[in-house]
Amino acid sequence: MTPGREGAIGVFDSGIGGLTVYKALRETLPATERLLYLGDTARVPYGTRGDATVVRYALEGARFLARRGVKALVVACNTMSAIALDALRREYPGPVVGVIEPGVEAACNATRGGTIGVIGTAATIKSGAYTRALAARRPGVRVAALACPLLVPLAEEGWVDNDVARAAVHTYLRGLATPALDTLVLGCTHYPLLKKVIAETVGTGVVLVDSADATANVTRALLSGKGLLAPGAADATPPGTRATAHPADGDHFHVTDSSERFLEVGSRFLGRPLARLELVDLQE
Amino acid sequence: MTPGREGAIGVFDSGIGGLTVYKALRETLPATERLLYLGDTARVPYGTRGDATVVRYALEGARFLARRGVKALVVACNTMSAIALDALRREYPGPVVGVIEPGVEAACNATRGGTIGVIGTAATIKSGAYTRALAARRPGVRVAALACPLLVPLAEEGWVDNDVARAAVHTYLRGLATPALDTLVLGCTHYPLLKKVIAETVGTGVVLVDSADATANVTRALLSGKGLLAPGAADATPPGTRATAHPADGDHFHVTDSSERFLEVGSRFLGRPLARLELVDLQE
Repeated sequence: MTPGREGAIGVFDSGIGGLTVYKALRETLPATERLLYLGDTARVPYGTRGDATVVRYALEGARFLARRGVKALVVACNTMSAIALDALRREYPGPVVGVIEPGVEAACNATRGGTIGVIGTAATIKSGAYTRALAARRPGVRVAALACPLLVPLAEEGWVDNDVARAAVHTYLRGLATPALDTLVLGCTHYPLLKKVIAETVGTGVVLVDSADATANVTRALLSGKGLLAPGAADATPPGTRATAHPADGDHFHVTDSSERFLEVGSRFLGRPLARLELVDLQE
Repeated sequence: MTPGREGAIGVFDSGIGGLTVYKALRETLPATERLLYLGDTARVPYGTRGDATVVRYALEGARFLARRGVKALVVACNTMSAIALDALRREYPGPVVGVIEPGVEAACNATRGGTIGVIGTAATIKSGAYTRALAARRPGVRVAALACPLLVPLAEEGWVDNDVARAAVHTYLRGLATPALDTLVLGCTHYPLLKKVIAETVGTGVVLVDSADATANVTRALLSGKGLLAPGAADATPPGTRATAHPADGDHFHVTDSSERFLEVGSRFLGRPLARLELVDLQE
């Protein structure tokens, strides 16, 4: 049994990057929705792990959020979405939203010529999940996929606009260069932080697709379709019109490693201080 | 009770980097010694984790090796040596050797003017372990310590001699630059892979200290002093003189994540194929 519409929405990431998805959800969902964020910061990154390890970590996180009574699960991590979504849907009885399908839809809407690039972690690219989903959504599409493992630690280091970031992005992306490429999917939640340098490198003719907004829209539509939007949400009060409380006041953040770094980097991601941060043990 | 001199030596690292220490041990110890290597590749890197998490992971690894009957523990990871050595010595009854003391001794022998630089992971540098140990060993020493978090993923990516490596090393090390610096401790087992670029950046006047050899010598002396060298070792048969078997034939490698990557990178580290590789669960 999953909780009804009063339950919170679980947002699950391997670490900090999923806060880009949290932010988009907060901007898209009614203020009455509560979000529970889990970042497995003790074991980040997932993108360099083997498949069995990613699935095990994903199930442990989903069980933790299920015990906290969430009504739906948003998997904010591309690696988990690519590798563990089926396992999560078998295990968790409520709706499960990943970031790959929404990103693929956005990319198919954006491309003109049908040549799409995808960059992501080693595990995401190796899984072939983007290539399969793009081909299914738009037969005949040409996909150039490339793993860029160093971009996650670069973003975590805050080196998003210096010589090192430029050298790394250039070294990776010259492997993708083709005049036909008109759309590039940022297939990892950390990569939007490097958007400026990536855009400089690929040039203005290429649309960069960040799946956070698309994922938030899919989540809202899915909850609405299943009658699971929070009570009061039917008024569709636009965010910002409630003077009594900030929409995020009921939200709660959980991490599996010491929280100092998450507080610091997370507040930078969100543009406001992070409240209600709790250190948890997934084996509890 | 720990096993006697017939037991193997446990070599424990957060991942692949500790193979530099394994290699030095193999070159220094008699051929009759057996080594059990454990790389916690499912949770690497430790250097960006909080202290409590590093201690928990270290104890889990030590318990695993103790169950496999090792007679001594060599902690090949600087982060664990900096943060968890006391906890390991309280928990594990046999001799425990870390990499920091041997590296500090080598640095104090190498410096002429008494100004020593130390680079390492965020956790190692934040712990202050090198600064304290250098000051205790050589009062009046001047220490410049700097965290270089991106160098581990760079080495793991195999980017050790390209534009990205040069830009990263240069960006970090200009923060250490002082004409007085004559010795630089590579306070992370991954950094020797970047030795060429680091040497180019700091110039020929600076001695680079890699603690692997020093750690192997300390391990041999400690085992000898406690009567724990393997039977047959007293002959001090120099490695290479035994025609019947390679000294490493009895060694065994354990990893906590899929082993493909470890096999590939590890064989590059050692210059020979890795045999006897086993995927293990530390919670088994």
